[in-house]
Amino acid sequence: MKFQAEIDVMPKKEILDPQGKAVTGSMKNLGLAEIQNVRIGKHVSLEIEADTQEAAENKVEQACKSLLANLIMESYSFTVTAV
Amino acid sequence: MKFQAEIDVMPKKEILDPQGKAVTGSMKNLGLAEIQNVRIGKHVSLEIEADTQEAAENKVEQACKSLLANLIMESYSFTVTAV
Repeated sequence: MKFQAEIDVMPKKEILDPQGKAVTGSMKNLGLAEIQNVRIGKHVSLEIEADTQEAAENKVEQACKSLLANLIMESYSFTVTAV
Repeated sequence: MKFQAEIDVMPKKEILDPQGKAVTGSMKNLGLAEIQNVRIGKHVSLEIEADTQEAAENKVEQACKSLLANLIMESYSFTVTAV
């Protein structure tokens, strides 16, 4: 079976996010001062070939831990759906 | 009212994604050959002060178009929820 995973990798709350801070500042210049607290991370989409939903989730977990996220500075969350 | 927006900005399907291609290759080396077709974009989370859900969505739309996404190469999608 084929599964589609959508993964968000974000800087942890305790970690400064200079890119997000810069974008928050730019919002004001664009007349969007109502927008606050911008944080910027990565979004990863991928396909997995697996027998079960659980197996697919395990693979994604493994990929996040070993490659996609730096667990010292980033946290991740994902959804896996059959396609 | 305060709203939380979660925005995904991804390279369009027609556009080559060299970072995603590199990660797809690395998956094989990590013993995760079942993972294919990795694409990497940005995930942005932000807070908006607005009167209604619709007003908040309009602000996010405006932010995406004017700053967060390059519409020539990227497409975006978002969800807005009251907090």
